[in-house]
Amino acid sequence: MNLEKQVEQFKSLQETLSAYHIAGSLINWDMSTGGSKKGMGYRAKAIGIFTMKAFEIQTSDEMKTCLDVIGSRLEDVDEVIKRMYVLHKKEYDKNMKIPKDEARAYAELQAKSQIIWEEAKEAQDYSMFKDILGEIIEYQKKFVNYRGFEGHPYNPLLDDYEEGMTVEILDEYFENLKKHIVPLLKEITATELPYNTSFLTNSFPVDKQKEFCIKLMGDLGFDYDAGEVKESVHPFTNGLNVNDVRLTVRYFENLMTSSVFSAAHEGGHAIYEQNIDPKFEFTGLDTGVSSGIHESQSRTYENIICRSKAFWNYYYPTLKTFFPDELSEVTVEDFYAGINKVENSFIRVEADELTYSLHIIIRYEIEKAIMSGEVTVDNLPTLWNEKVKEYLDLDVPNDELGVLQDVHWSFGLFGYFPTYSIGSAYASQFAYYLKEAVNFDEDLEKGNYENVNNWLKEHIHQYGSLKTPEQLMIEATGKRFDSKYYVEYLTNKYKSLYNL
Amino acid sequence: MNLEKQVEQFKSLQETLSAYHIAGSLINWDMSTGGSKKGMGYRAKAIGIFTMKAFEIQTSDEMKTCLDVIGSRLEDVDEVIKRMYVLHKKEYDKNMKIPKDEARAYAELQAKSQIIWEEAKEAQDYSMFKDILGEIIEYQKKFVNYRGFEGHPYNPLLDDYEEGMTVEILDEYFENLKKHIVPLLKEITATELPYNTSFLTNSFPVDKQKEFCIKLMGDLGFDYDAGEVKESVHPFTNGLNVNDVRLTVRYFENLMTSSVFSAAHEGGHAIYEQNIDPKFEFTGLDTGVSSGIHESQSRTYENIICRSKAFWNYYYPTLKTFFPDELSEVTVEDFYAGINKVENSFIRVEADELTYSLHIIIRYEIEKAIMSGEVTVDNLPTLWNEKVKEYLDLDVPNDELGVLQDVHWSFGLFGYFPTYSIGSAYASQFAYYLKEAVNFDEDLEKGNYENVNNWLKEHIHQYGSLKTPEQLMIEATGKRFDSKYYVEYLTNKYKSLYNL
Repeated sequence: MNLEKQVEQFKSLQETLSAYHIAGSLINWDMSTGGSKKGMGYRAKAIGIFTMKAFEIQTSDEMKTCLDVIGSRLEDVDEVIKRMYVLHKKEYDKNMKIPKDEARAYAELQAKSQIIWEEAKEAQDYSMFKDILGEIIEYQKKFVNYRGFEGHPYNPLLDDYEEGMTVEILDEYFENLKKHIVPLLKEITATELPYNTSFLTNSFPVDKQKEFCIKLMGDLGFDYDAGEVKESVHPFTNGLNVNDVRLTVRYFENLMTSSVFSAAHEGGHAIYEQNIDPKFEFTGLDTGVSSGIHESQSRTYENIICRSKAFWNYYYPTLKTFFPDELSEVTVEDFYAGINKVENSFIRVEADELTYSLHIIIRYEIEKAIMSGEVTVDNLPTLWNEKVKEYLDLDVPNDELGVLQDVHWSFGLFGYFPTYSIGSAYASQFAYYLKEAVNFDEDLEKGNYENVNNWLKEHIHQYGSLKTPEQLMIEATGKRFDSKYYVEYLTNKYKSLYNL
Repeated sequence: MNLEKQVEQFKSLQETLSAYHIAGSLINWDMSTGGSKKGMGYRAKAIGIFTMKAFEIQTSDEMKTCLDVIGSRLEDVDEVIKRMYVLHKKEYDKNMKIPKDEARAYAELQAKSQIIWEEAKEAQDYSMFKDILGEIIEYQKKFVNYRGFEGHPYNPLLDDYEEGMTVEILDEYFENLKKHIVPLLKEITATELPYNTSFLTNSFPVDKQKEFCIKLMGDLGFDYDAGEVKESVHPFTNGLNVNDVRLTVRYFENLMTSSVFSAAHEGGHAIYEQNIDPKFEFTGLDTGVSSGIHESQSRTYENIICRSKAFWNYYYPTLKTFFPDELSEVTVEDFYAGINKVENSFIRVEADELTYSLHIIIRYEIEKAIMSGEVTVDNLPTLWNEKVKEYLDLDVPNDELGVLQDVHWSFGLFGYFPTYSIGSAYASQFAYYLKEAVNFDEDLEKGNYENVNNWLKEHIHQYGSLKTPEQLMIEATGKRFDSKYYVEYLTNKYKSLYNL
């Protein structure tokens, strides 16, 4: 077998897959950002065709030959081909182990399930959703068994979104987090913030919010010549290519800070994608390596940078030029306290930085129990409500504010939630070493984000998917992933803010 | 061979081709309407991949088997499959007859050529463009010979853009046109319009122009829930799907009427695409059947409807609400005269309704001479300038205003120009019978476009590409294509306007 020829073929298959990815993402972007209303049907059909064609390539005889030949000669190919091989081999094996008719039946179930979840959530009635959720779970359990796994049956699902992640690592991580955050939270909720944060729910004109967010993202490093910003109900970032990264923000007139931090968050995702080395274009490596690493970058911009005191010491006067009347009585200290205010709440996506991970722990523990069979769909709401009481000290009034709040399970997304919390923890570990390398606070006090961006680009962004999350972490920080950085960051920040 | 199975396979191949068309069009749309500047490279590459994948399907063994089996059983398939067969068979035969390496070399030449044409045009120097144009022409001649043809060697190229069109038909058409238009034009240019048309080059705020054009297109029948309008330097319409038709308009502050009629023109193209029966989605028949028929619909909305007196008798007060100051001194009679003013000019795209076809005759006669070998690239500018003198009585001052003005030849688009003129002629023939069926002037005087739209939809739009241009014409008007309707329309309109 000619290795060179197979490498060329392998690249060519990937280029077609990249083109399908671009097409699917672009159609999706249109669908989510106000493309023609009546065009929903044709868009879904076209996306279906691209998904099917991509699956055909991923499971084709040509792909198998490429993987066989390249797999037997890994020492003779460069690091890009080697990494492409690892990712495709994993995908190929996974796809081949799941019988095609079951994969199809599952896909149909997913499509139905999301609609049923919406109806159930609207009706605040989990019982409407229970049966189809049970079916989805049964498929996931079957698929996991087809695929095979080491250790806990939840492991292959964790690995789907965070390469190398296991129950063993996460148990330790979440236990340590719980041990420190739950008591810290009790202290905080017993304390009154010595600032006036009533401005948070005041009215701020939406068009001014937009102007400000556009400026903010540009200042942080988003390149408007290599991307686009629109508005949508659920903010998201869509990386078509390193030179075309699109994101959306949503604006609330009476929750200006929410708009600002959704912009900083998506801006962070987008800057990551824009900073990937263009040499990875059309190799499939031209995107963030994992959900956790991606989230670490959005959280770096949103929290580490934009929820810091140093940042607003410089940037608050700018914000005031957009809202001179609205903020005339609000000091920068009030503002900083407001955007970091801690509050127990029911809804994950509205949670502050401190309680956020508690929302994730609840989901992690439940998903783990689902996969091990320790909980059935009948008991989910009860288990959910118990955990909310335990960690957040709240009584869940209905399923909409409880077990039905997130869309994820309705399309079988088990194993994804933990990446939200890991992302913040990664961000803290990166930030610790970032702050050793650059004068972080001083730079932010001067409105200089270049050194920070360069460090992130050099150690994380540029690589796209070339390195695993673990490699990135070890090479950037010299250490494996360790929860202590996150615990330390949260403890210092909130003890200082609440004078504890 | 199982016919049913082959029909299913055939439909499935077409669905993939349709998905590729959607992807390519969408990427193109982004490219032309302000998508990320730095993303030009990846877009070109992705479009290249889709073009190549489409070519692979069109020339695949699977396609050949489909065509063989369906072609032998045409009496047993429905009209949609039959028509799809005819169109694919034509494409397949054409592709198979041209050697792949020559097709590739030609594509590379096209890419280079366009850049050279731009530079030559900029420098007003045809000699820079001559050599590569000569190469393009040689390829076209070779390809025509590979493909084979009846009658004139220009015929297969004409048929590429207007199914069934031949030199025999066009010679007769353009001769008749010349016979009547050239003397009419002489009479007109010797006459002074008895109206004040100085408003044409006054300043009209662009944002008001936009608002007006959006309203106008909506009133004419463009469905904003099934499409989108943006701005671009060269206006165009992009039919992704019957439920997603996008168009652009360009606005000139000092040429408001140009903006308005570019909107009406593209609006006409778009309404055609939106009115196609949705049952043709993903069959490849869900688009206008030919360039000529498409142009007939854009010209119907632009000229037959929007350059009529009846239209402005109703709509002019609306226009005045957008420009109360700018139009305060302009009567509806002045306005009507202004938008129909005849003037000999060098540039085709700026030509009025009457002289427009003379610009096309020049190109038609030259292209015909190129294909028959009666003219060489060396003589093109001389021939061009002679014909401009003969038909438009103008002395061409440089190549930019002469032989270099259009992009078409730089990518080998020979045979396309005639469809611009045929489109107007088709429009006149349709209009003659449309006006027998509905109270055209009365409806327009009331701002009612429903009956007109319904007639066009019923006789033309709904069919997409199901019927040939000739079938559409005969079924809608009971007659074959005949230049007399166009001559009559132009003669009546301009004699009346100029009091001749």
